Amino acid sequence: MPEFFNVLAPDVAFEALKPMLTPLDDRDVVLTSSALGRVTADYICSPEDLPAFKRSTMDGYSVRSRDTFGASEGLPAYLEVVGEVRMGEAADFRLAVGQAAKAYTGGMLARDADAVVMVERTQMLDETAIEVLRAVAPGENVVQVGEDVRTGDTILEKGSIVRAQDIGGLLAQGVTSITVCRKPRVGIISTGDELVPPDAQVGPGQIRDINTYTISALVEQCGGEPITLALAPDEFEEQRIAALNGLLSCDALVFSAGSSVSSRDLTAEVIDSLGEPGVIAHGISIKPGKPTVMGIVDGKPVFGLPGNPVSAMVVFDLLVRPAIFHLGGCLRIPSLPTIQATLERDIPSVAGREDYIPVSLDQTGECARAMPIFGKSNLIYTLIRSEGIVKVPLDKSGLYAGEAVRVRLY
Amino acid sequence: MPEFFNVLAPDVAFEALKPMLTPLDDRDVVLTSSALGRVTADYICSPEDLPAFKRSTMDGYSVRSRDTFGASEGLPAYLEVVGEVRMGEAADFRLAVGQAAKAYTGGMLARDADAVVMVERTQMLDETAIEVLRAVAPGENVVQVGEDVRTGDTILEKGSIVRAQDIGGLLAQGVTSITVCRKPRVGIISTGDELVPPDAQVGPGQIRDINTYTISALVEQCGGEPITLALAPDEFEEQRIAALNGLLSCDALVFSAGSSVSSRDLTAEVIDSLGEPGVIAHGISIKPGKPTVMGIVDGKPVFGLPGNPVSAMVVFDLLVRPAIFHLGGCLRIPSLPTIQATLERDIPSVAGREDYIPVSLDQTGECARAMPIFGKSNLIYTLIRSEGIVKVPLDKSGLYAGEAVRVRLY
Repeated sequence: MPEFFNVLAPDVAFEALKPMLTPLDDRDVVLTSSALGRVTADYICSPEDLPAFKRSTMDGYSVRSRDTFGASEGLPAYLEVVGEVRMGEAADFRLAVGQAAKAYTGGMLARDADAVVMVERTQMLDETAIEVLRAVAPGENVVQVGEDVRTGDTILEKGSIVRAQDIGGLLAQGVTSITVCRKPRVGIISTGDELVPPDAQVGPGQIRDINTYTISALVEQCGGEPITLALAPDEFEEQRIAALNGLLSCDALVFSAGSSVSSRDLTAEVIDSLGEPGVIAHGISIKPGKPTVMGIVDGKPVFGLPGNPVSAMVVFDLLVRPAIFHLGGCLRIPSLPTIQATLERDIPSVAGREDYIPVSLDQTGECARAMPIFGKSNLIYTLIRSEGIVKVPLDKSGLYAGEAVRVRLY
Repeated sequence: MPEFFNVLAPDVAFEALKPMLTPLDDRDVVLTSSALGRVTADYICSPEDLPAFKRSTMDGYSVRSRDTFGASEGLPAYLEVVGEVRMGEAADFRLAVGQAAKAYTGGMLARDADAVVMVERTQMLDETAIEVLRAVAPGENVVQVGEDVRTGDTILEKGSIVRAQDIGGLLAQGVTSITVCRKPRVGIISTGDELVPPDAQVGPGQIRDINTYTISALVEQCGGEPITLALAPDEFEEQRIAALNGLLSCDALVFSAGSSVSSRDLTAEVIDSLGEPGVIAHGISIKPGKPTVMGIVDGKPVFGLPGNPVSAMVVFDLLVRPAIFHLGGCLRIPSLPTIQATLERDIPSVAGREDYIPVSLDQTGECARAMPIFGKSNLIYTLIRSEGIVKVPLDKSGLYAGEAVRVRLY
């Protein structure tokens, strides 16, 4: 297959892939307290009412509201205090007409009470009598049974990423374990005759493999499980065997292609040899990142990312990240962290192509300022010295200094 | 100490605490490949030049640039191809006048070559002769030795959070392990007579402890190590012993106070009893979240968070999160993820107080729209049904529908 046989626009690239991806069927049961960041495999319904009892929202007195009707500072209602409902305890007495009971924020009301008077709206006459200085309506200062959640309510949608507060909500209902989607296993193959492992002695003309590790970290950040498969030379059979082995245990494959054109073309050939339908995009109209290969083999996505670091990161965000979330059952892919900034310099581009330019950020002022870094995208430190990246949309031939831009932070 | 003895404005609260916090001295040595999210304990300098050899950025021919001077389509330069420098190999020959060698993207140049001619700018005459159709300047299409990073350059600042690309940058230099700051251990004590563990049978008037788990998840998200210390009743001595034990092994303590006023005051008393200086703020001028206690004991921060979930989250972001990053040696605390949105409804507030209102987001249009959720902040599901929170600044008495607001996503 020749280079750039089937170039896709960036906005259609993932859309072309998506219908061919099937979310994984496998599930894990995990402790709710350890479920941060996992994706729910099912709707989770509320097993009980929350709160399970009428709860006071104030420190004060639980009362029968009608006993306070008409009360004011000038004409207070006199109530007899017949008890106290301590925190964590149930009321073991009822209120008769004209009676009240001490109540605490989060505590139960006395039986037959339907409202709470704040302590600040009362005057204590002696140990057993108070004046109420303001009427309360039925239900005032009370959280009703089931007001937070009712039995049977959906408390967490299927395909949600579990957040800190979701853990709280589930545990509040006694849901101490949940079913989540298995993390997608993403196999990584770095290719290139020039690569050696990072801890190896580097000979002349050789460079250390870094993409295995940056891609692993990126996979982890979107909830996948990275699997290091191989560091393969630019040799068809060796890459093919590594990939076939990878497909046995992984749900997706990522090739990090060597930097020469022949190496990149080889990746496409290998992907095409693995199974049907093989390569579905060869080239994407972005810069950097054009020499991207995307395929499907037996329902599993296989990506060939360009070897240079800026391209690899851009294409990972655009294609691999949403694919991992999708495989992992996530129905609402979280947006990437961004910040609004004012562009400090013009960025030239070409209409019909998306450009991605690393920027450094000055966040000292009211509005952040983004300074484009026009370094070569094949320099690793362009990414390290920058704090984010700015996109020049497909239909624009550049961005102007002073424009407000959205910076994707990384 | 009476309730709200020493109320601080939110912007001064953390500033009051910060000078009393000492970043931890302890360090861990970790594999670079596993260092994602850790904080560097020292400056890391480049041990070598990157690249270590002059690298081609194109597939083509390495040449002595002067041999191409004046070359054009009409008057090409004729060069003899005397060899090829394969990927990952060194040139074992030199170029004489009028000679060239095959070069690959990322590969080495032939000895004495100082530029590369793109293959597209050449015409092959036979196996050993090419025409060069355009002159190249010295250094053209070449990455020079050390152009990415020079030996001795700072490649990662002290106190940086290690990102995916930083892992790549370090490994590219053969830095396979780095020294990072130890994760701050944050002890969590949930208090309240009404609390039972999430897996226990719940009696009337009792509720399940959830704050231990939501706070643990939040601590983890900012690089701390959560330690569950105790679920303590509203009893001074029991809370004090749990806290003293916690201070032996932890770098910070977080109390999640019971919801009644007396329970909250008890937290302050306990903190004051632990050591000097004790409580430094009792109350913060925010809503919800006013009943926050903040103290220092023997150089360790101790927080009393309000029991209700929205308040706990707001105060965590405001005080506990920056304190954990600071203790953990992070010199540039990452900003919280936010999104710009248009407010759908007025939010009333009161000048002199910061208000925090959960919102749900509609992100279908060009600009996200934020709908305030005016639920009671003591309902857990207010947080779960919302996707972010909007701040009404201290000096404003509200926000208007149609205003552009910044939503902190969670």
